[in-house]
Amino acid sequence: MTYARENIEQMHGYTPGEQPLGDHVIKLNTNENPWPPSPQVMAALRDISAETLRRYPSPSAAHFLAQAAALHQLTPEQLVASNGGDELLRLALTTFVTPGAPIAVTEPTYSLYPVLAAIHDSPVMSAELDAAWDLPVDFAERMNAAAVALTLLVNPHAPSGRLLSASQISTLASTLNGVLLVDEAYVDFVDPGHDVVSLIHKHDNLLILRTLSKGYSLAGLRLGYGIGSTSLLAPIKEKTRDSYNVDAIAERLGAAALADQDSARQTWHAVRAERERLTKALRERGFHVIDSQTNFCLAWVPAEARITAGELYAGLKERDILVRHFATPRLSDAIRISIGTPAQTDGLLANLDELLA
Amino acid sequence: MTYARENIEQMHGYTPGEQPLGDHVIKLNTNENPWPPSPQVMAALRDISAETLRRYPSPSAAHFLAQAAALHQLTPEQLVASNGGDELLRLALTTFVTPGAPIAVTEPTYSLYPVLAAIHDSPVMSAELDAAWDLPVDFAERMNAAAVALTLLVNPHAPSGRLLSASQISTLASTLNGVLLVDEAYVDFVDPGHDVVSLIHKHDNLLILRTLSKGYSLAGLRLGYGIGSTSLLAPIKEKTRDSYNVDAIAERLGAAALADQDSARQTWHAVRAERERLTKALRERGFHVIDSQTNFCLAWVPAEARITAGELYAGLKERDILVRHFATPRLSDAIRISIGTPAQTDGLLANLDELLA
Repeated sequence: MTYARENIEQMHGYTPGEQPLGDHVIKLNTNENPWPPSPQVMAALRDISAETLRRYPSPSAAHFLAQAAALHQLTPEQLVASNGGDELLRLALTTFVTPGAPIAVTEPTYSLYPVLAAIHDSPVMSAELDAAWDLPVDFAERMNAAAVALTLLVNPHAPSGRLLSASQISTLASTLNGVLLVDEAYVDFVDPGHDVVSLIHKHDNLLILRTLSKGYSLAGLRLGYGIGSTSLLAPIKEKTRDSYNVDAIAERLGAAALADQDSARQTWHAVRAERERLTKALRERGFHVIDSQTNFCLAWVPAEARITAGELYAGLKERDILVRHFATPRLSDAIRISIGTPAQTDGLLANLDELLA
Repeated sequence: MTYARENIEQMHGYTPGEQPLGDHVIKLNTNENPWPPSPQVMAALRDISAETLRRYPSPSAAHFLAQAAALHQLTPEQLVASNGGDELLRLALTTFVTPGAPIAVTEPTYSLYPVLAAIHDSPVMSAELDAAWDLPVDFAERMNAAAVALTLLVNPHAPSGRLLSASQISTLASTLNGVLLVDEAYVDFVDPGHDVVSLIHKHDNLLILRTLSKGYSLAGLRLGYGIGSTSLLAPIKEKTRDSYNVDAIAERLGAAALADQDSARQTWHAVRAERERLTKALRERGFHVIDSQTNFCLAWVPAEARITAGELYAGLKERDILVRHFATPRLSDAIRISIGTPAQTDGLLANLDELLA
């Protein structure tokens, strides 16, 4: 017999991108930063003592929060650490959404959001992005009319790579009656000048998600954090997160990563340069590519190619090159390619040329 | 204004034990193992590469599960890894309990359980342990009558340290209609011969929680795991746990810890010996002490002492010795003391003697 709740029985779980073993694969499928983490992170790792492992960590990851507060010119009360960004997404539902009440997302979006809603037994109010991949103009009004308590918005957007400006985010936060979670998983790769963090002083319903997985090359560490007003974060910090949700190693390595901004910025700069090169090279080959502000490109296979996007994905995989293909209506003719090193881009392009020939 | 759900607004969060900074404190308040983790764990830590941090970890913590499967003579499908045991507790509610439906606990019990129920918006059916700290004989029948879908039972019990036998657990699992989660956080310190794991082949509603925090001296790492039938664990593994819930470092260090059973067993043996010495020494001083099968003792302050348990806790704290005091009806006259090193026991006893004089 089954003991699971009915909604759990009926839902489908999240499908993570493939995580191949071995180093021979050109892995451009899960949006890792292609460059290694800061040497300061590795030094902090070597400094972890047996005593640090033996004892419980700081319940709030205090050392990491202090470093994040310094970086963003905030107080630790305006920050919360989480076991990867994914934990913060779940905590937002747990804290702000009564099970059964709807959450809002765009279509398409990060495919984990509807899974989290299904676990929470909440319906998803989904608003299709327009032909230019922009939000419908009446998005906030529609969500308010549906009494949505939480809107999950990934910005820059996945999988298109497009960016809503800070002023668009501000208008949304003003208009929405519920909490607006802006998932900034990819924000470090945005061209300089974009800033949403300062909006938390203006909007007490704005929750910003950051992760060290991409910008700081620490996907293996599972460390994210939330930024918001003290009143918005208090119930997460004091009540709904698991006790000791961030381990002692992540606390210390995360602090070391944030402290070494120069090292991280060099990788962001390199990713932007490679993103430009890949976009240009794909367009030269007839792909339709959206201008991306992330560390991936969404690219539509040329109409004249005698190969579908699904076949291209499979052909690349046979050649030990992993990209991502989503078999969903609007995305089925495209592949999503994480930005790699120049050598990885070269390898990808050479194999694309062979497969398209 | 507040955006939190009403049940979150009204509940109180979990209060973790104090985590003092600095090494001068004799810390006997949160049940850490007083002995360091295995040298193999530290060697595995030194081997973590930048590439391991850069990439996403195994979604299922496959390497750790393989090691746990070998240890318990099970398959990886009968195991699930979690971000500390606390995550598995939450996942049990998420997976098996419809919000609003009751869960069952004993009174007293691990103080996190009612907090998790409050977050889930589920009432708690609480059955008071009898004068001998045993379960009421009609416990399962009462919980079935209340349509309880999940029973949370810590065994050996916290904070008394008493152990229900495997045959008692088996009878409970047979009788309960819902899932029985047996929280074996302290099981490594039980005198040899106790085995509940083999019962999962008989009871498909039995979920066993293990943690590396205590037995393997890795509280700072946040790694626990669940043991149960394949059908019971499948929805947790495939649907309700966060994607990548265990980081790459915990996966590898946890595997190294389980692989070095000799090292861990030495600490369990040392803790048992010190538990016996502390129990005897406290009884000689007039304390009532329950026979403990854990790495802590629950000790009632002698009736003739001119100091309350709360005052004793505070007096010890002033002397940089941390123990735990629960200001709840049945426990308010006792202090809970984690088993430390012989030197820590000596320090505790000397200070107790001064405070009781």
